[in-house]
Amino acid sequence: MVLGGRVLSIQSHVVFGYVGGKAAVFPLQCLGYDVDVVNTVNFSNHSGYGRLGGTKTTAAELTEIFQGLERNNLLLPDRLLTGYIPGAEGLSAVADLVDKLKSEKPDLIYLLDPVLGDSGRLYVAPDVIPVYRRMLERSTIITPNWFEVETLTDIELKDLPSLRRALDVLHEQYHVPHVVISSIPLAAWLRAAIPPSLSAGLDPESSHLLCISSSATPDAPRRSAVHAQTVQLLPGYFSGVGDLFSALLLAHFVPGDAAAVARAASQALTKTHAMLRLTHAHSETLPEEERQATDDEKDRADPLRKVRRMRGRELRLVQGQDILRGIGLHDVREMQPWTEFWS
Amino acid sequence: MVLGGRVLSIQSHVVFGYVGGKAAVFPLQCLGYDVDVVNTVNFSNHSGYGRLGGTKTTAAELTEIFQGLERNNLLLPDRLLTGYIPGAEGLSAVADLVDKLKSEKPDLIYLLDPVLGDSGRLYVAPDVIPVYRRMLERSTIITPNWFEVETLTDIELKDLPSLRRALDVLHEQYHVPHVVISSIPLAAWLRAAIPPSLSAGLDPESSHLLCISSSATPDAPRRSAVHAQTVQLLPGYFSGVGDLFSALLLAHFVPGDAAAVARAASQALTKTHAMLRLTHAHSETLPEEERQATDDEKDRADPLRKVRRMRGRELRLVQGQDILRGIGLHDVREMQPWTEFWS
Repeated sequence: MVLGGRVLSIQSHVVFGYVGGKAAVFPLQCLGYDVDVVNTVNFSNHSGYGRLGGTKTTAAELTEIFQGLERNNLLLPDRLLTGYIPGAEGLSAVADLVDKLKSEKPDLIYLLDPVLGDSGRLYVAPDVIPVYRRMLERSTIITPNWFEVETLTDIELKDLPSLRRALDVLHEQYHVPHVVISSIPLAAWLRAAIPPSLSAGLDPESSHLLCISSSATPDAPRRSAVHAQTVQLLPGYFSGVGDLFSALLLAHFVPGDAAAVARAASQALTKTHAMLRLTHAHSETLPEEERQATDDEKDRADPLRKVRRMRGRELRLVQGQDILRGIGLHDVREMQPWTEFWS
Repeated sequence: MVLGGRVLSIQSHVVFGYVGGKAAVFPLQCLGYDVDVVNTVNFSNHSGYGRLGGTKTTAAELTEIFQGLERNNLLLPDRLLTGYIPGAEGLSAVADLVDKLKSEKPDLIYLLDPVLGDSGRLYVAPDVIPVYRRMLERSTIITPNWFEVETLTDIELKDLPSLRRALDVLHEQYHVPHVVISSIPLAAWLRAAIPPSLSAGLDPESSHLLCISSSATPDAPRRSAVHAQTVQLLPGYFSGVGDLFSALLLAHFVPGDAAAVARAASQALTKTHAMLRLTHAHSETLPEEERQATDDEKDRADPLRKVRRMRGRELRLVQGQDILRGIGLHDVREMQPWTEFWS
C-alpha cells in the first residue's frame, strides 16, 4: 500500500528536540508525504526543559502566511494536521483557514489534535476551548488525550457509562466522525471493562496504557464502532509522543469501512511504541546523572538537572527511521473490536 | 560508512516547497543526523513565486533563541550549517554564535553558504558582505556560487588566472580550508582549461555545469588540492538546489586527507543531479500550461502563470528519498584531480 499526498501541518516548532512539527513532519515525509509546514511558535526547546527562548507566531503573522499561500494558489493539501496553537486569536485564524479549505475541498482529511493540557492541567488559555469546540465538526479524526476528552465534553471519565456519554457527545453533538484516544492509563474499572481478549494477556506486574478508537460511520451512526488495544507503560516521561502518534495515524489512514481508523491506529500504536522502546533503551545507556527520576525540589535547585534528564529522553526519530517506514517491524499491535462496548 | 551526529542548521523556512531548511533538513535526517533547526525567516513560499507572505526573524529573536539553547546546555552540534540570513544585524547575531561555538569546540565542522545573490544580482543588503568576510575564517567549507566568489574576493572570474587568484584570496587571506563551487556554467575558456579526462566526454550539443573543490590542507598549504567534475545542465530554473547540495556535502564530509571534501562533493553532486533529473522528469509530465518557458511580460500580466511553472519544479525530495539515502544509486560522478590547475 503506497501512501503519499500533501499534508498541511500547523503546529509548534522547536530548534532542539522532537515535539510538535519536529515530531510529526519527518515521519510524514518518510512515509511519502509532501508536508507544508506552518510554525505556530519558534522556540529553542519544549517546555519540559523548564526554560526556553523564542516567540509565538501572532494571529496576524499566521494570517499573512495563509494569505501568501492563497494568493499563490499554494493551499493544495489533501490532508490537514493541526496541533499546538497558542491563544484563541491564533486558533481562530487557523479555524477560518480550516473553514475555507473544507468548503473548497469537502473530502479534505483533517486530523485535529485539540491540544489543551494533560493530567488535570490546562496549558492553554481557557478561551481556546470554545474555539476548539467549534472546530470539532470540521474534523475527520480527533486525537484528544483523556483530560482533553473530559475538558471538551465536560464529562468526568470515571466509568464505562461516562466514557460512553463522552463519545456520544463527540460523535452526536460535535459531529466528530472518528475519535482516537491513544494512551489512557488502564485504571481498574477500565481493565475490568475491556474485552477478555485484551485483558487476558496483561502482565499484572506492570502498568499498561489503552488505545481506543471510535468510528461513527454511516453504517453505525448512533452506536459507533469501537476498537481497542493495550501497550505496556514505559517508565518516565517522554515528550512529543502524542504528536508522533497523530502524524502516524494521519499518514496511515485510508478512508474506508468502519475499521479504517482502527487499522491506521494499529500502525501508529505499533510504530510509536517501538520508537518509545528505542528511546527508552537509549536513555538507559546514559550516565546515571542524566536519568535521575523526577524530583521537583532538586530540579528547582539545579535547573540543568532537569535538562539532562529531558535531553536523554528526546525521541530517537532519526536513529529509528526504519521503524517509521515499517522496515523489519513485526507483530503489529492490532486494534481489537470492542463489540460489547455499547451494550 | 555510517554517518550521523548533530547538525545545527540556521537558514530560511518556507511553508510550501523546498528551499533553505526545507531542502536541507530532511536530507540530513535521512542520512542519520539529528538536526537543530533555526528558522531565519518564516515565509509562505520562496521568492521565485514572485509574491509571498510571512516574516523575517529579527536579530533580537534569533539571539533569544540562541540564549534559550545556551541556558539549557542544548548548544551541542558537532556540525554547523548556515544559509540565507537576511540583514547584517541577524547575520552578526549568528556570527557571534559561531565565534562562541568555535571557541568551545575548535573541531566543529562549519559549512558556510555565503548567500549573497546569483548571476550578477545581489539579493541581500550590501552591508552583509563585510560580515560574511569576517565569518569566512571560522568556516571549514564554504559553498559560494560563481557570483558570490566574485563578490567576496572582488575578483571578476574571466579566465584561469583570475580563478586562481580568487581561490588564493579565499584560502590565504580569509583562511578558508575548503572551497566548493558547485555549479559553474562551463564557459569556453573553462572547458578549454579543465583536464582532458573531463572535457573529452562532453556532448558538444548540450550545456554543462562544472563543480570545483579546492582544499588547502597542511600537506598542500600554498597551492591547494583541486578536484572537478561536470554534470549536464538541465533546462529551466530549479530552486533550493544549492541548499540541497550544501546539506549533502556537509552530511557526506568525513575529515581526512586532501581529497576528503572532493569525496563528499562526489556524493553531493551525484545525489543532487539525480534529484534534479527526477524533478525535471516530473515537471515534464505536467500540463503544458504548468511548464511554459520564462516570459517576464506574460508573468507580469498573469502572476499565477509563474506560480504554476514554479510549483511544478519544486524538488522531489520526498518522492526521491531513496536517492538521498544512496539506495540504487549507480555511477557516482567522481570528482577528478585537476593536477595541472596551479601550473
